[in-house]
This record gives sequence, structure tokens and C-alpha cells, in this order.
Amino acid sequence: MGPGDDCALLQVPPNTLLAVSTDTLVSGVHFFADMDPTALGHKALAVNLSDLAAMGADPCWVSLALTLPEVDEEWIKQFCAGFFELAEYYNVALVGGDMTKGPLSITVSVKGTLPEGKGLKRSGAQVGDGIYVTGTLGDAALGLQKVLGNITVPEAHKAFVRNKFEHPHPRILAGQALRDIATSALDLSDGLMGDLAHITRASGMRAQIELEQIPLSAAMQDSVSKEQGWELALTGGDDYELCFTVPELHRGQLEMALAHCGVKFTRIGRMFTGIPDVELLLEGHPYQLQSQSWDHFRQP
Amino acid sequence: MGPGDDCALLQVPPNTLLAVSTDTLVSGVHFFADMDPTALGHKALAVNLSDLAAMGADPCWVSLALTLPEVDEEWIKQFCAGFFELAEYYNVALVGGDMTKGPLSITVSVKGTLPEGKGLKRSGAQVGDGIYVTGTLGDAALGLQKVLGNITVPEAHKAFVRNKFEHPHPRILAGQALRDIATSALDLSDGLMGDLAHITRASGMRAQIELEQIPLSAAMQDSVSKEQGWELALTGGDDYELCFTVPELHRGQLEMALAHCGVKFTRIGRMFTGIPDVELLLEGHPYQLQSQSWDHFRQP
Repeated sequence: MGPGDDCALLQVPPNTLLAVSTDTLVSGVHFFADMDPTALGHKALAVNLSDLAAMGADPCWVSLALTLPEVDEEWIKQFCAGFFELAEYYNVALVGGDMTKGPLSITVSVKGTLPEGKGLKRSGAQVGDGIYVTGTLGDAALGLQKVLGNITVPEAHKAFVRNKFEHPHPRILAGQALRDIATSALDLSDGLMGDLAHITRASGMRAQIELEQIPLSAAMQDSVSKEQGWELALTGGDDYELCFTVPELHRGQLEMALAHCGVKFTRIGRMFTGIPDVELLLEGHPYQLQSQSWDHFRQP
Repeated sequence: MGPGDDCALLQVPPNTLLAVSTDTLVSGVHFFADMDPTALGHKALAVNLSDLAAMGADPCWVSLALTLPEVDEEWIKQFCAGFFELAEYYNVALVGGDMTKGPLSITVSVKGTLPEGKGLKRSGAQVGDGIYVTGTLGDAALGLQKVLGNITVPEAHKAFVRNKFEHPHPRILAGQALRDIATSALDLSDGLMGDLAHITRASGMRAQIELEQIPLSAAMQDSVSKEQGWELALTGGDDYELCFTVPELHRGQLEMALAHCGVKFTRIGRMFTGIPDVELLLEGHPYQLQSQSWDHFRQP
């Protein structure tokens, strides 16, 4: 049963766990009130799917609670176009919804399945594991700073940066491929520094990151200094790339698996024994950052 | 795994379906901005559990997305007191959450389980079935009109009316008891007239209601005229009682089952062949109401 009855009824296959993630996006906090509704529809689902990706789950169902100041049919149509294009891409069925009047906000809850005993947790990292990330980091933060007028991005890179900011793509295939390879994983929503700290705390060890290894896009390199690029990569939010740890022994398996799904990835550091924390190295020497992590209680 | 990792992982027992319901409550639309936070915490969960009750499901898990204009620790503490008191009563575990800054709103998603092939749908009513409701109707609407200053409620009934308005109790036990007895069911959130119309449309037949049979509380009878009482019962929202249909053959079974869980219920009409609609009778003659249904796009 889908929307219409009081509840959606879902059949979870035997020997699988249900993975559930819920996120709220509020106008003026998580996105600009005048954001293109198609991009917003895409992003509202993408950030939730990213949580499933971080777990290695197979996306199955989604529910959508939309709060709107007024019934604007054209806006709703465009929002749904963005939302359902992504839903169809991953074969995710809408199984419930709610539409209410009020200040613009969107709550999405995605549900996926995982074979029992598989899920990628934050607590599984082992001493000696390599630390990896998919894609390039900081591009969404670069896009935000561009919109705010703080950074000028060369014309050739504008479309790329806007796309990374408005159209994050959840790393579903990479997450699934990492199920049997990674020891821990999460998605980068609040900046590498703060997010990786979750893995260090949950796993009880420290992480060492080599700044030179952090993958920066050509757009980033052409728009800001290296130091500014690292700052955006480490503390900027909304990248929705995966960060994960893999034992050296599985390195070959990792390369095959991610090559198979066409996802670029980079080794940026290693897990060590020690007090849970993230340590930054530049040319072998400790490096101190100014800001810490993306704060959702800070207005964009 | 509970909150903390990217997703909650839930184990759904074999041969059961997962029932999922999501609702958003927005300040100034679904509740007054100055509503007692403990009552609000209770109500936010209660209206969702009511959807599970309407399906006959066993509540298991809940996720909570809270959007607040500022971090007010005392408010959050009181909200959680109301929310978790009800969650513990039904042994519902929190398995995810999100807290963001923005205009006050609350999205709750509850998950329950149902033996395969059981769920109470809206489409199962049969010609000749009796139409029943639990409890008394219209009391929450009476409470709203009292707060708005439109109706004066005698001193002796004020606490009762306030409680029905702020502390709706989901009919979980009744819903479970009705699983093998009722042919259709839903919960009354928008008023009997509009809600019962869903059953008539889904089941493809008409409903005949005898106004004299509609259960009105002593508070209602002492506060307004009979006609006003019916109006509030038929078009007022927020009652969260169950409305369901039962074949005459199962009447004895129904009485035993609901007596067992201590829930009062009343037979208010019957299903007939005909164009899907709700027909009102007063002393055997057609009766016309003014307003239609509770509109969430109408400010309280």
C-alpha cells in the first residue's frame, strides 16, 4: 500500500535489516528561500540517500513531508520533478507524505535494506587502516561562498561549482561496493574535520590527515589559495562524499570495487592509536586550522 | 543501532509488514505557538501513533525531526518529557532524529509491525456493515472553540475539554483488537464527515449516519446545542478516535474485544450500495450540514 491509507505497509525481505534516515531542510538555514525548486527537490532527497550510502544500504522507500507557505502549483511541480527524477534513478518508491501550511521546510525519511551483519558503522576503524574519501572536497562550500560574494570563481568553473552546491550526488553505488571492504564509513555533510572526528571517537583512535593528499577540484585550485582550499575542504559542509577506512590488506579489492562503479577516491591519511582526534600534517609538520565545523545554526 | 550513526538499523520480524506514518505539526497552523511544550511533545507522537492504531499495527520505533527558532533547553526538556512518556507507555524506541534551526515545527515518523495480510484498510467495507466510532466526538474542536473564545464551557468540564484538545490518546489497543474483526478503519483527524468519506470512496459505497447515535460527551451536551454538537463532531478535527466498519455477524466478537481493552464504542450508521458519499439522517429524514471538513490550511 502506498500513500492514501493511514500508513504505508512495507515488506522487508527476510535476513535483511531496515536502514532508516530522516533529515529536515529549513528555508533560510539549509537553503536560500529563492533556491531553484527543482534543485531543492533533488537535494532534499540526495542528502538523505547519502546517509544510506554511508551505511552501504540499498535504497527502497521514501516519505516526504512538505511544509509550504502557500499552495504554489508551479513550485510544487518543479520541486517534484527534481525529487522524483532522483527517486526513479535509484528505484526508490514514495510510500507516504504529508503537506502542511507553514514556513517552507522539507522533511524526508528514506528507508533502505541491508543484508544482516553488513552495515558500515562509524565504530569499526582499525589501527593502521588507510583513510579515504570519494570525489573532491570543499566544492559545495566554494559554491556557497561564491553565492555570498566572498569568493570569485572563474567563468569556466561556475557551472561545475553551482552543480556541486545544488546537485549533490549521493554515493549509493560506492557505499554498496564498500560493504565488504571498508571497516568504517560516513558521509561528509558537515566538513571532513568534524565528520572524521565522529569515526575517531566511535572507533577509539586518532586520525592523521596529510593536507597535500586532500583532493581539490580544478575549480577550487583556480579560485583560491591552497590554504583556503584545505580550509573549505576540512570545514565546509554539504559535500556528501563518503569518508571511509580500509585495511592495507584490502587495498587491491578497494581499487577494483570502486573502479567498477566509476568512482574516484583518494587516500588522505591513516588511523593510529591515541586519543581520539583528527591531526593535520603539512609536509610532515602539525598544521592548525582556524574554524572547526559547519554549523547548521549559522545562517547561510 | 540507534541515533548516532548515519542511519538507524531496524530488525523487522519475519512474516510481518512494516507500517510507516509521517506527520508534520507546524506552529500557528496545527498548534498555538505558546502551547505547553509537554502537551505538544505528547500530541506530536500521539497523532502519529493514531495512524498506526487505525491500521491495527504494533508500534515499535519513532524518529523525531525538531525545528526550533533557538536552543531553549527548558522548552526542549519539557517537550521531551511529554514525547517520551507516551513513547515509553507503548514501548516505542527512538531510532533517529534531527534538530535544526528555523520556524518551530515537528515531524514525527512512527514505524510499527503487522502480521502479513492483517492491516486495516479503508477499502474493505462491505454493504450492510455497521459503522462504529470509539469514544466521543467533537471534544477537541470544542476545546479549540473555547480557546478562541467562541464557546463558553462550564467550569466543571474545562479540564476534560482541555485534555481532549491537548492530550489526545491514540487508540492503539482498540486498533490491535479490531485487526480480525473490522473490515475497514481510519482515525478521525479531520472530522467524521470528511474522514468517513475516504472509506466510502475507497470501498465504493455510501454511508448512512444517524445523528442521534453520534456519541457526544457530557461536556459537549452542557456547552452547546445538539445541532452545534453534531456540527463539531462531524466537521471538527483532532479527535483521534477510530471510525471502523464491522459486519453484523461479528457484532458479538466486537463487543467482547473492545470490552476487553476497556474502550467505549458506538454504532452510528451503516454502509449501503450507492454513490460513495456520507448521508446524514435525523429522525429518518435527510439532514444538511453547513461546513464540510477541518482544513489544515485554515489558521487556528
